[in-house]
Amino acid sequence: MTHNLLQGKRGIIFGALNEQSIAWKVAVKAVEEGAVITLSNTPMALRMGQLDELGRQLNAPIIPADATSVDDLERVFTESMEKLGGPVDFLLHSIGMSPNVRKRRTYDNLDYGMLSKTLDISAVSFHKMLQVAKRLGAIADYGSVVALTYVAAQRTFFGYNDMADAKSLLESIARSFGYIYGREHHVRINTISQSPTPTTAGNGIKEMEHLMDFANKMSPLGNATADECADYCVVMFSDLTRKVTMQNLFHDGGFSSMGMSLRAMNQYSKDMKPYEDENGNIIYG
Amino acid sequence: MTHNLLQGKRGIIFGALNEQSIAWKVAVKAVEEGAVITLSNTPMALRMGQLDELGRQLNAPIIPADATSVDDLERVFTESMEKLGGPVDFLLHSIGMSPNVRKRRTYDNLDYGMLSKTLDISAVSFHKMLQVAKRLGAIADYGSVVALTYVAAQRTFFGYNDMADAKSLLESIARSFGYIYGREHHVRINTISQSPTPTTAGNGIKEMEHLMDFANKMSPLGNATADECADYCVVMFSDLTRKVTMQNLFHDGGFSSMGMSLRAMNQYSKDMKPYEDENGNIIYG
Amino acid sequence: MTHNLLQGKRGIIFGALNEQSIAWKVAVKAVEEGAVITLSNTPMALRMGQLDELGRQLNAPIIPADATSVDDLERVFTESMEKLGGPVDFLLHSIGMSPNVRKRRTYDNLDYGMLSKTLDISAVSFHKMLQVAKRLGAIADYGSVVALTYVAAQRTFFGYNDMADAKSLLESIARSFGYIYGREHHVRINTISQSPTPTTAGNGIKEMEHLMDFANKMSPLGNATADECADYCVVMFSDLTRKVTMQNLFHDGGFSSMGMSLRAMNQYSKDMKPYEDENGNIIYG
Amino acid sequence: MTHNLLQGKRGIIFGALNEQSIAWKVAVKAVEEGAVITLSNTPMALRMGQLDELGRQLNAPIIPADATSVDDLERVFTESMEKLGGPVDFLLHSIGMSPNVRKRRTYDNLDYGMLSKTLDISAVSFHKMLQVAKRLGAIADYGSVVALTYVAAQRTFFGYNDMADAKSLLESIARSFGYIYGREHHVRINTISQSPTPTTAGNGIKEMEHLMDFANKMSPLGNATADECADYCVVMFSDLTRKVTMQNLFHDGGFSSMGMSLRAMNQYSKDMKPYEDENGNIIYG
Repeated sequence: MTHNLLQGKRGIIFGALNEQSIAWKVAVKAVEEGAVITLSNTPMALRMGQLDELGRQLNAPIIPADATSVDDLERVFTESMEKLGGPVDFLLHSIGMSPNVRKRRTYDNLDYGMLSKTLDISAVSFHKMLQVAKRLGAIADYGSVVALTYVAAQRTFFGYNDMADAKSLLESIARSFGYIYGREHHVRINTISQSPTPTTAGNGIKEMEHLMDFANKMSPLGNATADECADYCVVMFSDLTRKVTMQNLFHDGGFSSMGMSLRAMNQYSKDMKPYEDENGNIIYG
Repeated sequence: MTHNLLQGKRGIIFGALNEQSIAWKVAVKAVEEGAVITLSNTPMALRMGQLDELGRQLNAPIIPADATSVDDLERVFTESMEKLGGPVDFLLHSIGMSPNVRKRRTYDNLDYGMLSKTLDISAVSFHKMLQVAKRLGAIADYGSVVALTYVAAQRTFFGYNDMADAKSLLESIARSFGYIYGREHHVRINTISQSPTPTTAGNGIKEMEHLMDFANKMSPLGNATADECADYCVVMFSDLTRKVTMQNLFHDGGFSSMGMSLRAMNQYSKDMKPYEDENGNIIYG
Repeated sequence: MTHNLLQGKRGIIFGALNEQSIAWKVAVKAVEEGAVITLSNTPMALRMGQLDELGRQLNAPIIPADATSVDDLERVFTESMEKLGGPVDFLLHSIGMSPNVRKRRTYDNLDYGMLSKTLDISAVSFHKMLQVAKRLGAIADYGSVVALTYVAAQRTFFGYNDMADAKSLLESIARSFGYIYGREHHVRINTISQSPTPTTAGNGIKEMEHLMDFANKMSPLGNATADECADYCVVMFSDLTRKVTMQNLFHDGGFSSMGMSLRAMNQYSKDMKPYEDENGNIIYG
Repeated sequence: MTHNLLQGKRGIIFGALNEQSIAWKVAVKAVEEGAVITLSNTPMALRMGQLDELGRQLNAPIIPADATSVDDLERVFTESMEKLGGPVDFLLHSIGMSPNVRKRRTYDNLDYGMLSKTLDISAVSFHKMLQVAKRLGAIADYGSVVALTYVAAQRTFFGYNDMADAKSLLESIARSFGYIYGREHHVRINTISQSPTPTTAGNGIKEMEHLMDFANKMSPLGNATADECADYCVVMFSDLTRKVTMQNLFHDGGFSSMGMSLRAMNQYSKDMKPYEDENGNIIYG
């Protein structure tokens, strides 16, 4: 069931790779809700993934771009405005990659050229996007921008490595630019902090499956899926959330507000002996 | 323009008084979006306000109740289920009052009987609502509950007094009960932290007008209005936000993420001399 | 090794029961660091615990008081000033109790009379203490006040129940009163959020032992002990932290900033199969 | 009055320039408290500032280093261990610089080469320091590391520009590395978020003087001075805070927990008319 929440709106979706991608789902839902969009990803991602198929399905032009290149981004915005008939109303940044993680370097053995790439691809690309868009007038007044992030920006998860720092930087850029784009053009900028999600990108993270089980058992509503994340993105792009800006919005089934759930503790303490008093009586559950 | 976001849903709105009330606007929008609702407020509020008019306009039964009374709340839920034809899908708690503020007692001269009332009316009422609803099965699985709050729960505003403490307690209750209601019935519970809003309740706060000017100038998008807050509530009641729970969601034009804006500083420093270097040159703006 | 950090200072320690108590350790260290103090707890705690012994050991007068009684608190402050020779320089609030937890009522089946008691004993008592002290001039200018709290104020732990809400309220009171006491008398007010600690009070919490194991394995430095907490309290009472106020200070070996540690995950996933790719190869650890 | 808090400890202080510098004050106090230290700053800072004088005064070797150079950092740690007689027990990172701020480029017109420098100098240098130290075994077990930061990492201040993003990144690095260094060597890593301070670095920020007035009037205890910050650093280096790690510690007179103070509002609303009711009566103050 659709609601025409994005009727008459134009958008750009960065970072869809294949059907598992959150960005892919966002693209599909945005079009279902009435938007016209363009899609962008790197030339390499275009070769590896199925973006062509999505473009055909949604009648959405694909504009290859390296999001760390200001020139490429200029082209994405210019072409999008041409093809969609005007400045865009929404933008999704779903881009992240750490060469250090890929090369399995630990956090106390980072390669600094790689760290620089992690930050440039996963965070500074967001600033470039916004700065280029503002200069070109490519986001319409009252537009909405969302970047996807993860709770590792606030709390340390072993193995998440320098991506945690990149996400902190990304969230800071959302606030810093949100102030300026907001006061001048009423454009709002938020990040959505999503549950761990079994996408191609997510699978690079160490012991991902166990972490997802833990997150799922900790979260009273369970992990949020990519589909549900797409719903939330649509809501943030719609005119019903016009005064929400500079926020990091947790979309995680409650994980971020949990310290310990009964379900997770049951798994954790499976082989532990129950707590007993001096007479051997088990104390309260 | 409506979107049928609440088609087929049932809800209860606590706390509408008159056209200025956020709860009033939420009731109107919820019905526009396809919901059927009941309205509740205290007998005294019913006499003072215009709730009868709203009830007629929306074809919504009014059920008087003191939200600090478990008996009254049981009646609200029981009658709502009868009149709406089943358990409700959403609930708004927009209730707050401090006798200490009313009596202009300062925070270092609180009356403890009054503090107890502040907490009971403004925060514990929310727990009672949830406990009664859960016991009666009065909220359907996958339902959504929202309570309205204010950033004073995180940061101190002179004059906001013991309402700050009540709001902290309210937000904690949302988290604590969100865990339990979520894991057992997929019911999500969030608070929306709204800009200062010129409602009847808001006007009790000291130097409200100046504070609203400050908040407005600090916020890149300006203060959020009651109407915009109602839009956000509708979104949180809809099926598009099903994995958001135990969160405090700022709906404030960016205020909560601001340290100092240029506009606010211009007002603040109006009569101050500009910063000069040793040669009398004004330094950078 | 001592440092004379509290040389010439006077203080009151609320809440010491026996040698396990954090407040007990704080009292001992405060005296070692040069302070003179009084001790206070409820008449019942005095009967159950070993406070007499501590009083003799530290040459510290004991003043029985129910911290929910304004009259009793007045007596504590008046007698403390008499016996110590002037207004106090520091104050520890280490008081918390939930009848709902004791009676093993779950959070969705609270008794509201008991909830009221939980809040009154564990949180409102702190406001009463501060309001009485301010009225009587019982805290010297530049004094320091600390209350002990727990991370459940921010994140939900199953079984911690209405104590979580009480701790949120307590932390809010610290901020609200910190503003007023700070601007008028330079008195600073902070809360220390301590690791789960095996005290008599802590043992009331459901499955405490497993939770302590989890917290310990999650925290890179392990759980903080009561002794270490006492050190931190002394530091907060000393003149070296005069501009820290209205803060919640985590003293927890890093727990509050952790999402998942390798040690905790190893325990959590003990009986889970390792993550494998389609060829049965174990993927990255 | 000193307390021998750092008796027998070795440390390195990065970033002292002249008497206004917080790092300068930390160096002085650390030595007063019994430590032996080395000092490090860039060759350019050594020419511009008075570090030589400080070195003589404290009998502290000066080791020039560009903190973005891994080679230079290796030299700092190696020489420090030689000259001080073993691995260090504490470390201060007080380094930050934004070429974009210097060149008065606004945040929506950043030069990306300069942004890269801002991040490298102000944040990544901290990671390099820690990675090099860990590899060389240059920080003793149970050591303590502090980096100085600013609340702009959490909330946007106009004119603070890309330094806000750098500080967010810095604080994230403190958490990420705090986990690893903590679990393996009990080394704790924290950031201290200091009031705006009239140092040479601070004066680069737009309208600094007005902002400092605002911060001062908002903070119940007023702005924290550089001297007071040095006291707090000493405390964090001492053995009395051994279980505090991965924290961002606000040392700001309460600013971070304030929404609006009476003093600040009085200045803000100086030329505004008081709030009146319909009969022209001024309402509540």
